[in-house]
Amino acid sequence: MKTAPKSLRLHIALFGRTNVGKSSFLNLVAGQDVSIVSEQAGTTTDVVEKPMELLPIGPVVFLDTAGIDDTTALGEKRIDRTERVFDRADVILLLHEGCQTTDFEKSVEAKAAEKKIPVINVANKADLSNPSDPSFLRCNSTDLASRDHVLAALKAELLRVCPDEFITPPPLMGDLVKPGGLAMLVVPIDLQAPKGRLILPQVQTIRDALDNDAASLVCKEREYAHMLAILKQKPDVAICDSQMVLKMVADTPPEIPCTTFSILFARLKGDLRKFARGAAAIDKLEPGDKVLIAESCSHHALEDDIGRVKIPRWLRQYVGVDVRIDVYSGRDFPDNLSEYKLAVQCGGCMQNRREVLSRIEKCEAAGVPITNYGMCIAQTQGVLRRVLSPFPAALDAYENA
Amino acid sequence: MKTAPKSLRLHIALFGRTNVGKSSFLNLVAGQDVSIVSEQAGTTTDVVEKPMELLPIGPVVFLDTAGIDDTTALGEKRIDRTERVFDRADVILLLHEGCQTTDFEKSVEAKAAEKKIPVINVANKADLSNPSDPSFLRCNSTDLASRDHVLAALKAELLRVCPDEFITPPPLMGDLVKPGGLAMLVVPIDLQAPKGRLILPQVQTIRDALDNDAASLVCKEREYAHMLAILKQKPDVAICDSQMVLKMVADTPPEIPCTTFSILFARLKGDLRKFARGAAAIDKLEPGDKVLIAESCSHHALEDDIGRVKIPRWLRQYVGVDVRIDVYSGRDFPDNLSEYKLAVQCGGCMQNRREVLSRIEKCEAAGVPITNYGMCIAQTQGVLRRVLSPFPAALDAYENA
Repeated sequence: MKTAPKSLRLHIALFGRTNVGKSSFLNLVAGQDVSIVSEQAGTTTDVVEKPMELLPIGPVVFLDTAGIDDTTALGEKRIDRTERVFDRADVILLLHEGCQTTDFEKSVEAKAAEKKIPVINVANKADLSNPSDPSFLRCNSTDLASRDHVLAALKAELLRVCPDEFITPPPLMGDLVKPGGLAMLVVPIDLQAPKGRLILPQVQTIRDALDNDAASLVCKEREYAHMLAILKQKPDVAICDSQMVLKMVADTPPEIPCTTFSILFARLKGDLRKFARGAAAIDKLEPGDKVLIAESCSHHALEDDIGRVKIPRWLRQYVGVDVRIDVYSGRDFPDNLSEYKLAVQCGGCMQNRREVLSRIEKCEAAGVPITNYGMCIAQTQGVLRRVLSPFPAALDAYENA
Repeated sequence: MKTAPKSLRLHIALFGRTNVGKSSFLNLVAGQDVSIVSEQAGTTTDVVEKPMELLPIGPVVFLDTAGIDDTTALGEKRIDRTERVFDRADVILLLHEGCQTTDFEKSVEAKAAEKKIPVINVANKADLSNPSDPSFLRCNSTDLASRDHVLAALKAELLRVCPDEFITPPPLMGDLVKPGGLAMLVVPIDLQAPKGRLILPQVQTIRDALDNDAASLVCKEREYAHMLAILKQKPDVAICDSQMVLKMVADTPPEIPCTTFSILFARLKGDLRKFARGAAAIDKLEPGDKVLIAESCSHHALEDDIGRVKIPRWLRQYVGVDVRIDVYSGRDFPDNLSEYKLAVQCGGCMQNRREVLSRIEKCEAAGVPITNYGMCIAQTQGVLRRVLSPFPAALDAYENA
């Protein structure tokens, strides 16, 4: 965490009138004291920076301001310093006393609008006011027991408003190949893409190899073993379409790391460790349990549709009991997740990382394990350990779940 | 030609009132007698099929009808037969006497419109009427000396109106790889495509290899020699971006056939032999000659733009004299081609085959040699023979030009 350069950190400026509870709010979020908390006006004499890791966003830094409405001797200088915070902030957290909006809050919002910085409004001491405005994040910064709840709500809001570049994805596959190395890409015989095309995840993977000074050998599953045999040196990694994972694993010598496009995209667009833990939950399904299948494309369902037909069939065969399955497609995602024992998200090649991470957060908040198509398929085919082995942290998460 | 199945032939139904000159028109086009020509009404007693090869479209078959306005004894039966022609026709050639349009021509046009079949109107015996309607193709079917002119005009019109599937392209590269074989695809280090993407010709080539049960090894020019070295068997073909053709040829052992994406697309979208002959014309350029460069994308010109900067520079360096260069982009193509000594067409990855073939026909009609970017580059780098060698007919055309 300490090695992330400042510019890669999401800068969250914390504004609020004197004594609205900025420092106690920050303590609540950080779980430790970083600025001097006091009931006396203007104890904080400069902008205090508090870096922390706020997954799934990653490294952030809170900028604790001294309060622009301050009226003590040092006030003017502090206003200067505080205003400069607007130049550095990616997101503004504006603490209100309950839902009260005074000239101070209005001036911060106006300045933020002028600078096009998103604002998250927090109703602090919400127990004092009972705010009706649902756009406020409610908290009581002195109630340490509420920490988990406040943190989850804050993360969800940050994920919603923060600039795209902070939803930084891990590499697609560049870390799995050496410069000058080779990736084997194994694609289906019934190529799903329209004539003359490849599906986007395949193109992105070929491109990522090139961007990392490596090459890709693209072949169908039928030619895969032959292609391995004509190589004088082993490839760095083999990557296949999930639907042929069993055959690829069978054809791949144990010393060659292998995985699936779907698992690469689980990492790129989502959170591989959480999805790995979610995959382990498949083994705990019981008769009558409900499973949510979330497909991002609202494509015309094919006869042997992966989300509607194949995954439900493989899941039922694997768990050996009848589970009930709901399929949501496109932007649809149920509000009430609590009835589900498992959620299975598609590869998300048409979604951005923000959207997939939001779904993971929603599932986590509702206590529902979530995995993705490729990991669910690999688990039901009995090869998830093998195809997770290129990702030790995710494999650990799976083993310990 | 005889082996092309009927359904792959463009069916051209020839309609016209009795004695308007259908049979003599057909004889003129075919250059030989196929149906009985007579001045007596209704000599042709059934639909006569005349197959022929009409490049660049390929195999066509003319359906010579007996004339729906026929009034002789056999008339009714013949009308039945003739009407069934509408079910088979891809294009209708409607012969008028001059530009006269009687109820007969109107009924044919109405039927064609109903069946959504394109109609080419021909003013026969045009010397009798001097038609003012420029949409008519003018001819005098008894003037055998006009054959070349009529044929060229007819081909241009057929190219314009015939259904897409008859502008049948040759294979992209499937004929250059064996089943189970391997193509090396060498792409630039400065990948021109946006982040996470490949340019369309590369994707189409990878897909075409897969469709032909072969594999592709995709690498950058820097890794190419290394990738060749890790193969136990030689690839079937190596294909590179034109801009690195010199390096690829240098790195490719003589026993491995090699070519460029641009040459593959010259064949797919255009006419490889004609482009090869056009490339030979580069050597005949003289000081002050004008060269037309036609670029199909109207993209923002880059600093080192291939069409505007690199090809003009390579051309001038190679011919050693100053040639004048006009660049046309997008759908623009000059009407008056006669001032040019050479036309150089881009790869046409954003154009369809119909459009590129039309340009070739226009250049040919104006006596202007035409080649494409990739072949022009290979010629100016001195390696065209090598990269044409996978295509013996085109190499012959080049050698004999």
